[in-house]
Amino acid sequence: MIKVRVYRKGEELTTVPVADLSEVRQDPEVLIWVDAVSPTEEELATMGEEFELHPLVLETLRTPNLRPKVEQFKDYVLMVCYTAERAPGRPHPEPREVDLVSGRNFLLSVHRGQPIDAEAIAERIRSHPELASEGGGFLLYVVLDDLVDAFFPALDAIGEHVEDLEESVFQGHAQVQEDLFLLRKKMVAVRRVAGPMRDAMVVLLRRDLGLFSDETRRYLQDIYDHLVRVVESVEDYQDLTANALDANLAVISNQVAEVARSLGAYAAIVAVLTVIAGIYGMNFHHMPELGWRYGYAWALGLMLVSGVGLWLFFKRKKWL
Amino acid sequence: MIKVRVYRKGEELTTVPVADLSEVRQDPEVLIWVDAVSPTEEELATMGEEFELHPLVLETLRTPNLRPKVEQFKDYVLMVCYTAERAPGRPHPEPREVDLVSGRNFLLSVHRGQPIDAEAIAERIRSHPELASEGGGFLLYVVLDDLVDAFFPALDAIGEHVEDLEESVFQGHAQVQEDLFLLRKKMVAVRRVAGPMRDAMVVLLRRDLGLFSDETRRYLQDIYDHLVRVVESVEDYQDLTANALDANLAVISNQVAEVARSLGAYAAIVAVLTVIAGIYGMNFHHMPELGWRYGYAWALGLMLVSGVGLWLFFKRKKWL
Amino acid sequence: MIKVRVYRKGEELTTVPVADLSEVRQDPEVLIWVDAVSPTEEELATMGEEFELHPLVLETLRTPNLRPKVEQFKDYVLMVCYTAERAPGRPHPEPREVDLVSGRNFLLSVHRGQPIDAEAIAERIRSHPELASEGGGFLLYVVLDDLVDAFFPALDAIGEHVEDLEESVFQGHAQVQEDLFLLRKKMVAVRRVAGPMRDAMVVLLRRDLGLFSDETRRYLQDIYDHLVRVVESVEDYQDLTANALDANLAVISNQVAEVARSLGAYAAIVAVLTVIAGIYGMNFHHMPELGWRYGYAWALGLMLVSGVGLWLFFKRKKWL
Amino acid sequence: MIKVRVYRKGEELTTVPVADLSEVRQDPEVLIWVDAVSPTEEELATMGEEFELHPLVLETLRTPNLRPKVEQFKDYVLMVCYTAERAPGRPHPEPREVDLVSGRNFLLSVHRGQPIDAEAIAERIRSHPELASEGGGFLLYVVLDDLVDAFFPALDAIGEHVEDLEESVFQGHAQVQEDLFLLRKKMVAVRRVAGPMRDAMVVLLRRDLGLFSDETRRYLQDIYDHLVRVVESVEDYQDLTANALDANLAVISNQVAEVARSLGAYAAIVAVLTVIAGIYGMNFHHMPELGWRYGYAWALGLMLVSGVGLWLFFKRKKWL
Amino acid sequence: MIKVRVYRKGEELTTVPVADLSEVRQDPEVLIWVDAVSPTEEELATMGEEFELHPLVLETLRTPNLRPKVEQFKDYVLMVCYTAERAPGRPHPEPREVDLVSGRNFLLSVHRGQPIDAEAIAERIRSHPELASEGGGFLLYVVLDDLVDAFFPALDAIGEHVEDLEESVFQGHAQVQEDLFLLRKKMVAVRRVAGPMRDAMVVLLRRDLGLFSDETRRYLQDIYDHLVRVVESVEDYQDLTANALDANLAVISNQVAEVARSLGAYAAIVAVLTVIAGIYGMNFHHMPELGWRYGYAWALGLMLVSGVGLWLFFKRKKWL
Repeated sequence: MIKVRVYRKGEELTTVPVADLSEVRQDPEVLIWVDAVSPTEEELATMGEEFELHPLVLETLRTPNLRPKVEQFKDYVLMVCYTAERAPGRPHPEPREVDLVSGRNFLLSVHRGQPIDAEAIAERIRSHPELASEGGGFLLYVVLDDLVDAFFPALDAIGEHVEDLEESVFQGHAQVQEDLFLLRKKMVAVRRVAGPMRDAMVVLLRRDLGLFSDETRRYLQDIYDHLVRVVESVEDYQDLTANALDANLAVISNQVAEVARSLGAYAAIVAVLTVIAGIYGMNFHHMPELGWRYGYAWALGLMLVSGVGLWLFFKRKKWL
Repeated sequence: MIKVRVYRKGEELTTVPVADLSEVRQDPEVLIWVDAVSPTEEELATMGEEFELHPLVLETLRTPNLRPKVEQFKDYVLMVCYTAERAPGRPHPEPREVDLVSGRNFLLSVHRGQPIDAEAIAERIRSHPELASEGGGFLLYVVLDDLVDAFFPALDAIGEHVEDLEESVFQGHAQVQEDLFLLRKKMVAVRRVAGPMRDAMVVLLRRDLGLFSDETRRYLQDIYDHLVRVVESVEDYQDLTANALDANLAVISNQVAEVARSLGAYAAIVAVLTVIAGIYGMNFHHMPELGWRYGYAWALGLMLVSGVGLWLFFKRKKWL
Repeated sequence: MIKVRVYRKGEELTTVPVADLSEVRQDPEVLIWVDAVSPTEEELATMGEEFELHPLVLETLRTPNLRPKVEQFKDYVLMVCYTAERAPGRPHPEPREVDLVSGRNFLLSVHRGQPIDAEAIAERIRSHPELASEGGGFLLYVVLDDLVDAFFPALDAIGEHVEDLEESVFQGHAQVQEDLFLLRKKMVAVRRVAGPMRDAMVVLLRRDLGLFSDETRRYLQDIYDHLVRVVESVEDYQDLTANALDANLAVISNQVAEVARSLGAYAAIVAVLTVIAGIYGMNFHHMPELGWRYGYAWALGLMLVSGVGLWLFFKRKKWL
Repeated sequence: MIKVRVYRKGEELTTVPVADLSEVRQDPEVLIWVDAVSPTEEELATMGEEFELHPLVLETLRTPNLRPKVEQFKDYVLMVCYTAERAPGRPHPEPREVDLVSGRNFLLSVHRGQPIDAEAIAERIRSHPELASEGGGFLLYVVLDDLVDAFFPALDAIGEHVEDLEESVFQGHAQVQEDLFLLRKKMVAVRRVAGPMRDAMVVLLRRDLGLFSDETRRYLQDIYDHLVRVVESVEDYQDLTANALDANLAVISNQVAEVARSLGAYAAIVAVLTVIAGIYGMNFHHMPELGWRYGYAWALGLMLVSGVGLWLFFKRKKWL
Repeated sequence: MIKVRVYRKGEELTTVPVADLSEVRQDPEVLIWVDAVSPTEEELATMGEEFELHPLVLETLRTPNLRPKVEQFKDYVLMVCYTAERAPGRPHPEPREVDLVSGRNFLLSVHRGQPIDAEAIAERIRSHPELASEGGGFLLYVVLDDLVDAFFPALDAIGEHVEDLEESVFQGHAQVQEDLFLLRKKMVAVRRVAGPMRDAMVVLLRRDLGLFSDETRRYLQDIYDHLVRVVESVEDYQDLTANALDANLAVISNQVAEVARSLGAYAAIVAVLTVIAGIYGMNFHHMPELGWRYGYAWALGLMLVSGVGLWLFFKRKKWL
């Protein structure tokens, strides 16, 4: 599905058919935004024709799961970006790809699903009509800003999850392992897209692409700072989970040690009782205690004394 | 075995004998591709003469298992590449070396086995005759594209294997260790060739070798992007397997702890029963219980109560 | 709350209202320091107007928990810094953000809580009136010096804590784990702000911002050296705690091994006694020892000898 | 012991005394190779005089175990190299130092023991007299080529050893630890010399030392490639042994777990038998089973049934 | 305590009072070395006046435990260095700070304790009077050479300690842990000063400070090489101790496993004997064996056979 928005001097025009765009975009005062959600092969081909896209660009728009990158073509810049999906119910949204093609007075955004909140962006342009007159570079900024900001709720969710896990680590729960494992996997997935995206932003900022005014460049620098923060946060969380994993292993190790120690100590106590019972169960003809009036009480008392004595001994050694 | 293909103005000529190539290649409108599969020493020597190759180049073509590299000579570029072997039945194909020598209007490809799908490439040239007129640089691109793309099925197989292992990790199966070990070995093997190949591509792109048009260079950039993706995927998989290995060790650790705990708890229960039996097995003359009518039942009952009591106690402590 | 200090030729003027600052700052001989503690939205807006701040600067002053960075604007430099909070009772103070805007003849400092000891700084300026005439760059130095120096007591506290933990590690206390875990978390928090701050200082020193005299630059170099030392100290402490954690795991491992060994050895001794008692508890009609005069003493003696013998044997094997 | 070889126009002259070399080397058509095996202090001094060596060079030739490096002096280049000793019987030969001083028309090689196969090199020069006329730079190449190639048999031996260890890892043999430990130590030793040697080669290639023709430089590039391969191979082997060590620890961990489990299970079975025997060993007057005709058989049967039952139970739980 | 040495044309003058130095140093043919051991605040102030030192330099000379660094001032260079203390009885000497200020014709060295062997250096200058005429740069070299060389005995001591530990690792001694822990701490301390010192040397060599002749620079390069060797040696030792620590943990792990296994096996043997004794201790009226003539011997024989049988079984399984 393709949604075309055309602005002239800060005003939104009535919808223009895709097929007219090659003509409309000749007008330098016009700003075009084509937002394509899961476009068909045919729709892609039309966009390719209207904006004279290079075959490699179309190939890129068609292929899912590419690495974030920036590539400069004669009249436009191709950018493969990622954002965190906005899925309210899901704890750790998956990264979603968004491909952007940004020319002097147009922006194409191609994606699957709803990673871009297009309505909110359109609203933002509507409320600041003067910005729309800054051209395709500024539109690129607005969309990138929206994409990068979507990482922060995802990071916050990860951060909270990390803190929860840290707390339960010191109870040595076994399922913490599995949670930590899944969380680390998620973080690898975020770092995998955020790192190259940050590098792509550097290219966008450094190379003179003729797309950005100094003012726009300053705003892009701001997005770059956000991306650095995303990457560093993920790395911090990775450090913390590695730390938590170490701690958890140590806690489990300690617990095993303690349980083994206390079971061993109890076993020793019971074994001594068994020996006493065994001694008075021997069948020697001459065993004075057997004939005693309170021999049985003596034996039970002996057991009680040894048992309690050992128990106190182990207690003092902190084995119980 | 040497297979010579000669194109002029996009048309394939009838096969030309190797010995005529030094003459044929004087024609600037001609494009020559010599594909040598496990060439004999003699065949190599002939190629060396026909294309005036430097002794170090012949040495390279002769030696197996070199590092990927690009080296510039006066009239041509030598490139040592690797690809993943196309062996349908094998789960993790070995990397295979392919040596390429690319001149203004010729390409030599030397390899052992069938790492290059030469027929498919020839077909691709046949269907786009206009490309063949771009010269040796474009032919190099076509072959490199084929070589690098062959890594992706291998990576997908590794990825699936990693996911399978992740699932079986949390059952703590012991053989997971061995699988993970072999997988990591495979990944070291792939990274060992993909990393230097990526670096060699940078050299090919950066240095002005006079072989590539701007258009061809853009396509080579595309191959470079693919190689970066190969390297990053391997690194991601390495992270994931390291993660899985940690998790597996933790799971096994937990299992050992749990089994030790529950065996210890059962041992404690049985030991208490043994003590009770031992007490009533003592031979004191005066043990009131021994004479009771239901003394035996009392003893058995005492055992039952202590056993069940302890069992409940351990159950509540989560040791069972 | 906003506190305005204005100096002319080294003398402090009577307090100037914020709303007059746009006028006062036209006088090149004046030096203005505006220290804003948890400013309201309105106060920020006033500062923005008086000093003609860019919307992105106001956005930065408003947002908490940003990464340390330096950004150059036309007439001033924006710096996001961190310091260690001065909280006497707390063992490991949290990093606190301070945003600085430094122009040719003014400095704005914006923060929450009391990370800046403003009175001490004001005193320092009062006692060296000649320095105040160096302009905004020197004022920036004075404040940065104060902020960075606040890291050292925090580092010393961490260092002492690390040494305490190192000592208790070799007693294998289980709670060492939790302490080490929390300490590592603290250190990640400090490194997270100190590292980027050091990088921001490099930018401040390298780029010709027109704010600093050669003399001031030398003093800033000194602050940079301090920041490098902060970062390296944290890294050293991280190495030491990682080292301590390894040692602690090894110590616990050893303790478990020793306890298991000694419990196992005692179990073996008691089990042998049980067997002896069991043998003389058998009901065979013909067991010569049972009829012996001192059979009972013989059995007890046998137990004593085996027990002591095994005990000596295990002692020599260092299992006890 | 010093061996002097002098070549003129590709022909080897009769041996020239060391003391005449300062004169002989004035002839630009001459090529001198002085190979000093464990030279005495006096011999070094003579070489120093004849070739006008700087005191720091003599200091370097005298001191053993230096780091690989290249240092340029006015008329010559000093190079500290390492090679793998050729000791047929030893599995992992030690790195051996060779110091080279290479001038326009001479090469000095100083070493202890026989790390250079001087005869083979002399033979190689004899068979290619035209090369000898290339001057000292080419002679340096020939010797370096020989030194670097000597690493490969050593690497192959390490590689085979690693593969052997990998196989025995999954049997969990304890001595694998010690072998892996020694192997890692060897690899640190090789990497310690190969890494800096590679860096020294870069210096040799980059700096214009006036010693090498373009052709010779190409050959030196080849040596550099070999050194990169040496370093990468060692790093790969280090990865593999780290991998193997992890696997071995996991295997041992598993084995301990399995043995503990199966011993625990057997202990449980035997403990149940002990309880049954203990019950029928109690001395109650009224125990119906004791009077049964087949009471004894019943008890034995009960033991057999519980024992086998438990055994099957544990077998199904995979604890046995 | 301050010791002043003044040389003119290679001759040592009679001692000059500190207060005259500002005058003496005007003579360009003079070379001054001021060695200050734990100087008082007053002595520092005098030095500051005589040599016109910047306040930041005095601050540096006053503050202990700074990072190694080089800082250039108008007329001199400030260098913060470290050396290993020469304390014969101590196994691992602590790093000690030495601050150097080197001008065109003077050198100030400030330190606490005796890290500089000033007499030996003075002797060296006395025996080579021609060198003293090279100026302050050469004097700096002589002192640096002495400081850096002092690291090598410390490194050798560490190296021997590492080798001792490696040997005792495979006996699995528990105290090895603590030794390794302390050793690693020492190495962190050495690396912490040697690394930044190496970097400071690079600055000294790269920047044109106008202090060093080409000849002196070559000698400084030699010191740099030594520092690189110090850093690499420490890193190698760190690798080796990490390696040794891994090995030790594995050895202990193995030992625990073996002890657990053999104790478990003995427990199984004794448990079987207990069951046999328990069976013949049952009180059934009809137990044929009880009436046998050699029933007792039969029972003991049965025990012996089962015990020895199990022992052989476990022996064959390598559990004993």
